[in-house]
Amino acid sequence: MLYILQKKLYMEFSIDKSLQILERTPTVLYHLLNGISTDWTQANEGDETWNAFDVIGHLIHGDKTDWLSRTEQILSDEPDKKFTSFDRFAQFENSKGKNLEQLLIEFSEIRIANIKRLRDLKITDKDLQKTGIHPTFGEVTLSQLLSTWVVHDLDHISQISRVMAKQYKEQTGPWIAFLKILKQ
Amino acid sequence: MLYILQKKLYMEFSIDKSLQILERTPTVLYHLLNGISTDWTQANEGDETWNAFDVIGHLIHGDKTDWLSRTEQILSDEPDKKFTSFDRFAQFENSKGKNLEQLLIEFSEIRIANIKRLRDLKITDKDLQKTGIHPTFGEVTLSQLLSTWVVHDLDHISQISRVMAKQYKEQTGPWIAFLKILKQ
Repeated sequence: MLYILQKKLYMEFSIDKSLQILERTPTVLYHLLNGISTDWTQANEGDETWNAFDVIGHLIHGDKTDWLSRTEQILSDEPDKKFTSFDRFAQFENSKGKNLEQLLIEFSEIRIANIKRLRDLKITDKDLQKTGIHPTFGEVTLSQLLSTWVVHDLDHISQISRVMAKQYKEQTGPWIAFLKILKQ
Repeated sequence: MLYILQKKLYMEFSIDKSLQILERTPTVLYHLLNGISTDWTQANEGDETWNAFDVIGHLIHGDKTDWLSRTEQILSDEPDKKFTSFDRFAQFENSKGKNLEQLLIEFSEIRIANIKRLRDLKITDKDLQKTGIHPTFGEVTLSQLLSTWVVHDLDHISQISRVMAKQYKEQTGPWIAFLKILKQ
């Protein structure tokens, strides 16, 4: 279902269409990254930016501690609706001693479990309007949280592709002029 | 192998590491896109931008007419090294009457065939320095062409993820502040 807003078509929120993305992300990343050279996966965009290995650790941490916990907090009968802050740097500790394939499998396993939990919640349209308290934004709805989970997945697929592309930046020669991704 | 350039590490060109990306792209895109709602795959970023369906058609056209043909032209004994211009809009005609799954399979098939042809060329380090004439840039090397093919794949994976993410832009509410992809 689409509706018109400022001359642009945007999708309405849908649990089913959100799950279509959430359930695919680990498989997409496994096929993109597993078995390729660490020249692609251990290199970043410079300074304090993340490489593909860091990003998979970050996705695992989000699935372990954030998205579904916040969903359950919003839906629970407990009065405390204030979310715990998300640790954006936990992966640097948690991923230590693991290789990328292990992380990709771990992400796949936690995501499968989370999708099952999410389906079992049988979220209704009324539930989607229930709210929690975000540490920065204040009141947010469940549909905003779940939409953000989906966009967050796609954001990191896009980021990993960009970070990998940049490793060949110097190698493309004059073509850099046509490759927008190298300038982001 | 990495070398230092302007305080940033960049990869050197490698046929094997290039093939690692080129051979994965169709599978990555199949897992990302096949079976999901057309709300994700038929929507674009507004105006004359492309949706996921358009991008897959564009990738097919590149594999049919551009990357490998130019490679073979550079390596051939023919004196004419001037490339034919690439038609960036051919997919709007070629994809007519097809569905996304058909395009994803077509892309996979042409890419498998192209990778076989590329391997059969047994490109040497010396070959990588051979040149062709690009309609805009003039002289370009084979290694620049092949690097660009890889970056072009990654650019379009990144683009498709971004275009899909934007369909939920309005649904994320205040989180838009944290989601860089929605502002690109």
